[in-house]
Amino acid sequence: MTQDSPTLTLAEIAAHLGAGLQGDGNRRVRGLATLRDAGPEQVSFLANRAYLKDLPGTRAAAVLLHPDHAGECPTACLTLGNPYLGYAELSRLFDPLAGRETAGVHPSAVVGEGVSLGEGVAIGPQAVVEAGVVLGGDVVIGPGCVVGADTRIGAGSRLHANVTVYHGVVIGERGILHSGCVIGADGFGFAHDGGGWHKIAQLGGVILGDDVEVGSCSSIDRGALGDTVIGNDVKIDSQVQIAHNVQIGDHCALAGCVGIAGSTRVGRHCMLGGGVGLSGHLTICDGVQVTGMSLVTNSIHEPGVYSSGTGAMDNAQWRRNAVRFKQLDEIARRLSRLEKAGRGG
Amino acid sequence: MTQDSPTLTLAEIAAHLGAGLQGDGNRRVRGLATLRDAGPEQVSFLANRAYLKDLPGTRAAAVLLHPDHAGECPTACLTLGNPYLGYAELSRLFDPLAGRETAGVHPSAVVGEGVSLGEGVAIGPQAVVEAGVVLGGDVVIGPGCVVGADTRIGAGSRLHANVTVYHGVVIGERGILHSGCVIGADGFGFAHDGGGWHKIAQLGGVILGDDVEVGSCSSIDRGALGDTVIGNDVKIDSQVQIAHNVQIGDHCALAGCVGIAGSTRVGRHCMLGGGVGLSGHLTICDGVQVTGMSLVTNSIHEPGVYSSGTGAMDNAQWRRNAVRFKQLDEIARRLSRLEKAGRGG
Amino acid sequence: MTQDSPTLTLAEIAAHLGAGLQGDGNRRVRGLATLRDAGPEQVSFLANRAYLKDLPGTRAAAVLLHPDHAGECPTACLTLGNPYLGYAELSRLFDPLAGRETAGVHPSAVVGEGVSLGEGVAIGPQAVVEAGVVLGGDVVIGPGCVVGADTRIGAGSRLHANVTVYHGVVIGERGILHSGCVIGADGFGFAHDGGGWHKIAQLGGVILGDDVEVGSCSSIDRGALGDTVIGNDVKIDSQVQIAHNVQIGDHCALAGCVGIAGSTRVGRHCMLGGGVGLSGHLTICDGVQVTGMSLVTNSIHEPGVYSSGTGAMDNAQWRRNAVRFKQLDEIARRLSRLEKAGRGG
Repeated sequence: MTQDSPTLTLAEIAAHLGAGLQGDGNRRVRGLATLRDAGPEQVSFLANRAYLKDLPGTRAAAVLLHPDHAGECPTACLTLGNPYLGYAELSRLFDPLAGRETAGVHPSAVVGEGVSLGEGVAIGPQAVVEAGVVLGGDVVIGPGCVVGADTRIGAGSRLHANVTVYHGVVIGERGILHSGCVIGADGFGFAHDGGGWHKIAQLGGVILGDDVEVGSCSSIDRGALGDTVIGNDVKIDSQVQIAHNVQIGDHCALAGCVGIAGSTRVGRHCMLGGGVGLSGHLTICDGVQVTGMSLVTNSIHEPGVYSSGTGAMDNAQWRRNAVRFKQLDEIARRLSRLEKAGRGG
Repeated sequence: MTQDSPTLTLAEIAAHLGAGLQGDGNRRVRGLATLRDAGPEQVSFLANRAYLKDLPGTRAAAVLLHPDHAGECPTACLTLGNPYLGYAELSRLFDPLAGRETAGVHPSAVVGEGVSLGEGVAIGPQAVVEAGVVLGGDVVIGPGCVVGADTRIGAGSRLHANVTVYHGVVIGERGILHSGCVIGADGFGFAHDGGGWHKIAQLGGVILGDDVEVGSCSSIDRGALGDTVIGNDVKIDSQVQIAHNVQIGDHCALAGCVGIAGSTRVGRHCMLGGGVGLSGHLTICDGVQVTGMSLVTNSIHEPGVYSSGTGAMDNAQWRRNAVRFKQLDEIARRLSRLEKAGRGG
Repeated sequence: MTQDSPTLTLAEIAAHLGAGLQGDGNRRVRGLATLRDAGPEQVSFLANRAYLKDLPGTRAAAVLLHPDHAGECPTACLTLGNPYLGYAELSRLFDPLAGRETAGVHPSAVVGEGVSLGEGVAIGPQAVVEAGVVLGGDVVIGPGCVVGADTRIGAGSRLHANVTVYHGVVIGERGILHSGCVIGADGFGFAHDGGGWHKIAQLGGVILGDDVEVGSCSSIDRGALGDTVIGNDVKIDSQVQIAHNVQIGDHCALAGCVGIAGSTRVGRHCMLGGGVGLSGHLTICDGVQVTGMSLVTNSIHEPGVYSSGTGAMDNAQWRRNAVRFKQLDEIARRLSRLEKAGRGG
């Protein structure tokens, strides 16, 4: 269900995006939709050639696209060199939630002693902000959130409902934390005495840089001694697990269900596909991409794309091949013997 | 720990299930247990031949089973063509929680303006129901839940404690949402400007059909423009991630830890095993089963069972074979050369 | 961010650990850090030869280490046969949170009828404790937690913020439950009538032994009829899914993102690496280790280390090999034919 959006003229949009405009600048639009779904009060965009086929038939009031495609556009157009980036700008322009929050502390919220609230801070119903917390300007703490003692959250950050942040965590500016995520729970550290486990208190913290987004139900654990550190502009999807003392460089993107074991360092500009696992104590250099559900057990020192696993196939075929996988070393040895026999013969 | 259950006579049970009865219809039972664990005040069932061995020794007051096995039953029996389905009915009959909720809004709950409450709605302690929400009859909102503005929840649905539903979500009738699940958080959408990421506001919503169940700590993200759509009678286990604009057809079942990337469409009557991953933008036809922890990176157009990966083996054996997997293309080429040499010789 | 820690003399620490001391017992330290990071007011430790290189340059006030390395230590030393275990003790000694909680029920908490509170119990703001719950001495219920009716929690256990425990769960002593985890949600049980799904009410419970730790956002489902049972001293990381009627033996450790399907029994002293999946209805004997992201589909009857999958490699290389995996059975057959031809020739 698309929410109510503000209305804007095409000229206002062009000015906001720094886009060229062909068509009636006074025309008013009040939403954003795909080329196929857009109605005459909506603006659309073309950012991927796969959707070029939908351009001629669109009913949109205007289409944001690359200048090269302006000639094929049946309606007004907004032209930009990077239309996908323009779409991102547009989407935020039409976001019905932007600035909806009203500042103030809801009477049902519980705010501890010595909490510092920046200007414009909004704390929602049933939230708990423990003693010594510092919230920068315009921070939004959603309903049901718990922010632990002495945690600091930078200006413009938003915690959606039911987020949990433990004590002593540092979150940068403009962060977005989605519901159910947990920042700063204990890392998984135990010493074994030969019979059972002894807990290692997790004395470090978590530092999130600026512009970090964390998806729903994701976990970022606090460090054992030093901190777990997430760089600036790191985007983390839902259901992700980041263990203690992991370091993630700036501008990385981690898709859903990724798991990173303790003390691994990921460089800048890395992209991890859904369900990827990184073992502990690895170093992954800048510019590495790992495809979905791959397991990385060794450090990576060259930028590039990495993968593991096998593709899906019909189960009967898979069973035959999976049995052979268990014989693979033996198969290779038999092949070598044959090759030697051939050469000898 | 089994909870206290209501007591019923065998005749009442037979009538409720539409089952045949052999034995004393006035006998009273007050619970349900396995053939091995059942005591003389409990009823049991046989739905799987693997447990036929437990039938002769059961102490149960009565056993629900297929008529073919009635002769082997040492006690009263309730006969049905599909005893597993009968077990499902029985389990609900003995559910001590059914109907336990008392209607009304707990004084500690926070209910926004313009909220519409159907008859019999129960809103638990510390819950937050934001402005404009519409709750159908007998909806239960558990303790600590947050329901975002303008969300609609159909009659008879139940949110267990600490569920989060964002704004503008639509949930059908008789839904069950387990604790910690999050419906309607932002999808994972960003545009790259060559240096870093720009957020794409997620303007779509989430629509859950009727009779949908969502397990604990699962995430269903809202659409980027259109909606994420979950069909009727879809059952979703715990720790599942469903990305933006995914569509799931009616009657699907998704086991724990499944992850589905953006815009993938899953047909009706599909079953995804635990930990299965589906890449984005795929089309999976009706009637597909994918076995546990398989990764699907291409669309599937034929019903059937699909798999990827390799089976577990002793680590030393696995190491040898996994090394060979990295040589597999070379092994295949060497084999081809040998074959050619053989033919040539 | 490391929190403020108490100060202690080296003699006090040596006495607490039962360690030998070389150096000034009156020297005061007020924290714990790695050999590289420690300052002159901190104590450090050497528990892994990989860090021996950091010993000569450490600025720590004292180092906890094996007596064999005392000669190489440039500062005071605390000597112990198992220094890693000593580190665990030390970490707890310097934990600034230990004993920080003050007993009592926060005025915003909602406590139901007939709840039994042991001495020293602390119930945080916005928490909900339903009717009939029994909390042992010194139990801490964090902010925003919900504890369902008739649940029992043993002495010294701590629920961090926003934990959800359903009705009728039993938790042992000294347990630690991290934020966002959910204990006792319904297992995933449905009967199919040929067209759709019928819910099987989950009438069993969950029993956690003593000294169990459960990580953030993990799920342990209640049993269908009998209970889901987690043994004593079982350590469970974040994002783990444990399905209904699973049994885990004492002293097991489950790393992040593990998933265990219904009714599987895991023996004592097992270790499951991150992302491991166990199919349902398996028996895993004592002393089994499974490496990260392996899938186990058959019971394991011998202790040892088990693995599945393939290691990550360059994507171009991987594509060539993954294609060959689909031909693997055929490759093996071709090899056999060649071998026969060779013998026949």
